Amino acid sequence: RTVRHDDVSLRITHCGVCYADVIWTKNRHNDSVYPLVPGHEIAGVVTEVGSDVKGFKLGDHVAVGTYVNSCRDCDNCNSFLENHCSKFVFTFNGVDTDGTVTKGGYSSHIVVHERYCYKIPDGYPLEKAAPLVCAGITVYTPMMRHNMKQPGKSLGVVGLGGLGHMAVKFGKAFGLKVTVLSTSESKRDEAISLLGADNFVVSSDIRQMESLKNSLDFIVDTASGDHPFDPYLALLKVGGIMALVGFPGEIRVHPATLNL
Amino acid sequence: RTVRHDDVSLRITHCGVCYADVIWTKNRHNDSVYPLVPGHEIAGVVTEVGSDVKGFKLGDHVAVGTYVNSCRDCDNCNSFLENHCSKFVFTFNGVDTDGTVTKGGYSSHIVVHERYCYKIPDGYPLEKAAPLVCAGITVYTPMMRHNMKQPGKSLGVVGLGGLGHMAVKFGKAFGLKVTVLSTSESKRDEAISLLGADNFVVSSDIRQMESLKNSLDFIVDTASGDHPFDPYLALLKVGGIMALVGFPGEIRVHPATLNL
Repeated sequence: RTVRHDDVSLRITHCGVCYADVIWTKNRHNDSVYPLVPGHEIAGVVTEVGSDVKGFKLGDHVAVGTYVNSCRDCDNCNSFLENHCSKFVFTFNGVDTDGTVTKGGYSSHIVVHERYCYKIPDGYPLEKAAPLVCAGITVYTPMMRHNMKQPGKSLGVVGLGGLGHMAVKFGKAFGLKVTVLSTSESKRDEAISLLGADNFVVSSDIRQMESLKNSLDFIVDTASGDHPFDPYLALLKVGGIMALVGFPGEIRVHPATLNL
Repeated sequence: RTVRHDDVSLRITHCGVCYADVIWTKNRHNDSVYPLVPGHEIAGVVTEVGSDVKGFKLGDHVAVGTYVNSCRDCDNCNSFLENHCSKFVFTFNGVDTDGTVTKGGYSSHIVVHERYCYKIPDGYPLEKAAPLVCAGITVYTPMMRHNMKQPGKSLGVVGLGGLGHMAVKFGKAFGLKVTVLSTSESKRDEAISLLGADNFVVSSDIRQMESLKNSLDFIVDTASGDHPFDPYLALLKVGGIMALVGFPGEIRVHPATLNL
């Protein structure tokens, strides 16, 4: 679209792949509007700014995440929780206020209101910045909200995919002792050697799970799909916190498991 | 029992009735040891203190709650979470370290280690203090832990029994706008006139429930037994908190309901 007074135009250099891109590309929710351009973990370089844009200038490195519009006037927008605004517009396959369908980051350029652009620090690799604006904040937000930045404490990360590897990296950066819990022994090397986790446990190994009981301060559960939660809750210390970032159909918990 | 060097002896003046008293009196868990003396919301007056007792003197008003012993040496005890100590001894029908079975507050006297005695302020009515050491703290603890003492914010209280009425009183004392949600219209008067709630909603009234959607900062769910949680979760604002103090067999939640 044309660059308006409060818009930023980007030349896109990188864009992450998130499972949501797959879902709408394949029309899994029967609401895809073709031709559809996915991509909502966007990094790029500013090529043009509107006359009223204050936060960005030509050449700036900028990221754009899951939304490109909202009302900018409700309680949620005023609290920078635009993702909860009732007029939130998704970065692709969303219907914008002018009726057009948004097109995402698998593209050469994008024009976005400056409110929804985020400055990437100079020198930070653009290819590493892109996935931070969806996968990264999905994990970072609950970790910060629940005060997990406490060096010396222990973190369990359930699942080692796009979200799980972010949780390990944030955990290590926060000074936590990180244990990766995975159904798959084949992830051990990635967890320990590549990502720097302190410990790796195959979650189907009852003995190893038993040895972890009441030992973790925090858990970030990134496993997708339906899976039991009680075996992980049993690993928490008294007052421990488990943050669930997946989206199962149902959450079932048996209170006797909880160490409140 | 005899008063030992660190014990306090109380003349019991009042003792609350909690559903746990009923459960063990009726041997619902097949572990009741008769003759059984229930009662774990105890208030009384100090009649004797051991030679090393520092916190109490003759005539003090004292409360005793759900436990009368623990190891006093583990992480939980050191954090004043004695209820999570593995050697925790319940106030009645518990096996103490000397092998005797504890007898509760439906009695004229009780002897308790001073660690498990709580000073009741002078002038505070003993009959009102007694239920605070079980029903009271069951509600107070999660309300404080989740920072619900924020005047002007809104609280929903699900269920208006022994716990629910405490939640209403704490809520009003904290300056919250309190809405009672009950299955029973017959509780309206008690909620509004006796306890001072601001609002009363029959939870089966779909229209009233709909009008409360996304309106509450906090919910304390005190309803016992199995019941759906999604209809209450839907009443929370973005980032709202629901504390569950009942003990259902299972907690089932559908993530799409959550306003995270």
